[in-house]
Amino acid sequence: MDQVALESNAVFMGIEYLAIFICGLSGGLAAIRKHYDLFSILVIAWVTALGGGITRDVLLGDLPPVGITDKGFVLTALFSGIIVAVAHPEIEHLKWSMIVTDALSLGLFAVNGTAKALAFHTSGMTAAFLGMFTALAGGTIRDILLNEVPSILRDKHLYAVPSCVACVLTVFAYRASVHWNLGLNGEMVLDVAIVILVFVLRVISVKFNVTFPGAMERHHMH
Amino acid sequence: MDQVALESNAVFMGIEYLAIFICGLSGGLAAIRKHYDLFSILVIAWVTALGGGITRDVLLGDLPPVGITDKGFVLTALFSGIIVAVAHPEIEHLKWSMIVTDALSLGLFAVNGTAKALAFHTSGMTAAFLGMFTALAGGTIRDILLNEVPSILRDKHLYAVPSCVACVLTVFAYRASVHWNLGLNGEMVLDVAIVILVFVLRVISVKFNVTFPGAMERHHMH
Amino acid sequence: MDQVALESNAVFMGIEYLAIFICGLSGGLAAIRKHYDLFSILVIAWVTALGGGITRDVLLGDLPPVGITDKGFVLTALFSGIIVAVAHPEIEHLKWSMIVTDALSLGLFAVNGTAKALAFHTSGMTAAFLGMFTALAGGTIRDILLNEVPSILRDKHLYAVPSCVACVLTVFAYRASVHWNLGLNGEMVLDVAIVILVFVLRVISVKFNVTFPGAMERHHMH
Repeated sequence: MDQVALESNAVFMGIEYLAIFICGLSGGLAAIRKHYDLFSILVIAWVTALGGGITRDVLLGDLPPVGITDKGFVLTALFSGIIVAVAHPEIEHLKWSMIVTDALSLGLFAVNGTAKALAFHTSGMTAAFLGMFTALAGGTIRDILLNEVPSILRDKHLYAVPSCVACVLTVFAYRASVHWNLGLNGEMVLDVAIVILVFVLRVISVKFNVTFPGAMERHHMH
Repeated sequence: MDQVALESNAVFMGIEYLAIFICGLSGGLAAIRKHYDLFSILVIAWVTALGGGITRDVLLGDLPPVGITDKGFVLTALFSGIIVAVAHPEIEHLKWSMIVTDALSLGLFAVNGTAKALAFHTSGMTAAFLGMFTALAGGTIRDILLNEVPSILRDKHLYAVPSCVACVLTVFAYRASVHWNLGLNGEMVLDVAIVILVFVLRVISVKFNVTFPGAMERHHMH
Repeated sequence: MDQVALESNAVFMGIEYLAIFICGLSGGLAAIRKHYDLFSILVIAWVTALGGGITRDVLLGDLPPVGITDKGFVLTALFSGIIVAVAHPEIEHLKWSMIVTDALSLGLFAVNGTAKALAFHTSGMTAAFLGMFTALAGGTIRDILLNEVPSILRDKHLYAVPSCVACVLTVFAYRASVHWNLGLNGEMVLDVAIVILVFVLRVISVKFNVTFPGAMERHHMH
């Protein structure tokens, strides 16, 4: 198995832990709003943070999945649940900080999920699917458990679309780095650019209310 | 791995693409009724069309699943989402055509899912379960994502029952073709007969309002 | 693969069948309350009884999962669905018997799920997660299909917490039995003690309304 470019570097591993932590906070917050007990808060924080990677690993056949085997990831996710159980009034006030860091997580999970799949020698299309599962499945499982329509379907702002763009670009970045022999550092630069692009797309979409079109509206002529 | 009888023939492969396309249309239509954006329409079309096969492959351990690796299947599912986003007013009018082609998909997915499992040398019971997952899981995942009770539970007409019959019969058809050495052509004839049977059962059930009994209604004598 | 201590003994295998049967009854009852047909009752009974083990096996990579391959387990689950379809008025009256036997199932599934994962040489943390999935995923899938918030999140009484305690203790019991060379019988005694502990915790929690704290309630000081 090849190495995942953004996991080869201590800085990016730090950002990955931060991404897991932020997703955990947002999950825990959703559970607190429904007045669940501490155990449920921890469960929802954990599934929001690591459910995407678990889904990717199940579909990739890399079992048991990293979301129940990696002690650092699991403890980070559970720790975010504890933090939010104590500091939820403060975190509720950090709406924009949450949207901003969540946008960062979105990009990072998409790029790393795709890169992991490519490291398992899947096709580009399969890798892009698995990257999207990594970025989007955690929040989707959270919403299913809370008995709500998943926010990737409900959210009028761009959320799934930037992650899709990121996954496709990551496949091209990987191929470019193989083709031109850019090495791990070259791939890392491209991957960082993709994460920043997703981040910008997502934040612009929320800030300026940019939405994606729906089905074509037409008059019945029957 | 042995060959799946109904995938050995160009005609039946064509029908399988049609089945995927029809399931995608019905999924996309459900998303349009909820006023989701184009991306969500594509997601729901894809998951309705290929979620059954993905569930089967996850349970069978044939990973990554065909629903994210087979370019023809994926493009067919996404294409159905685009078509329905444009032509939804027309497709809404095709209610009976949809029920009829959906009944065809139901039979085809059940038979092919069971046959694939048998080709992986599972027991007959396991193959029947996996055939039912292939036929029913896509629509179930669609309904869970749309936050509705799955139609296989809600639908008063026969839907799950014909698919169950098809899966059990496919196991017997496979054993008969091995036992009497009928070859791929003999098995194919039997499989076609099963698809037609499911189709007829489903259409009759909707047309003449045939339903399955519920729990026994009794008076309390306590 | 090592042997699962509580499955090495005819008495405990009998209890496992009873646990599956009871979970199936509770699942079938939920389906009957929603007036679903017999087929849906069987599906919900089966998924409630065996969905936990299926989830464990999918995450463990032991495919196809025992919930669709073990004829004894499958027939027991389906049989419970048929029984509840006939005898639901009586079973509704057995509320306390149901809570009591369900508490037994909870402990048994948690201990056996953890022990199976340990027999596949996972880490202790992974085994504890898989034990909890075994104990809790069946009821969770049932509630998702019935479009309700899962009872492990809703239930104010201790349900998930005792199962978590059981899984962690099972890991320690396994390590103790390896370290002090207690053998299968020694491990079995420890496992039985854990099942009894879970049972007592759960029943006390329902009886005396013991609950787990939620998020810290604080006044906003902003």
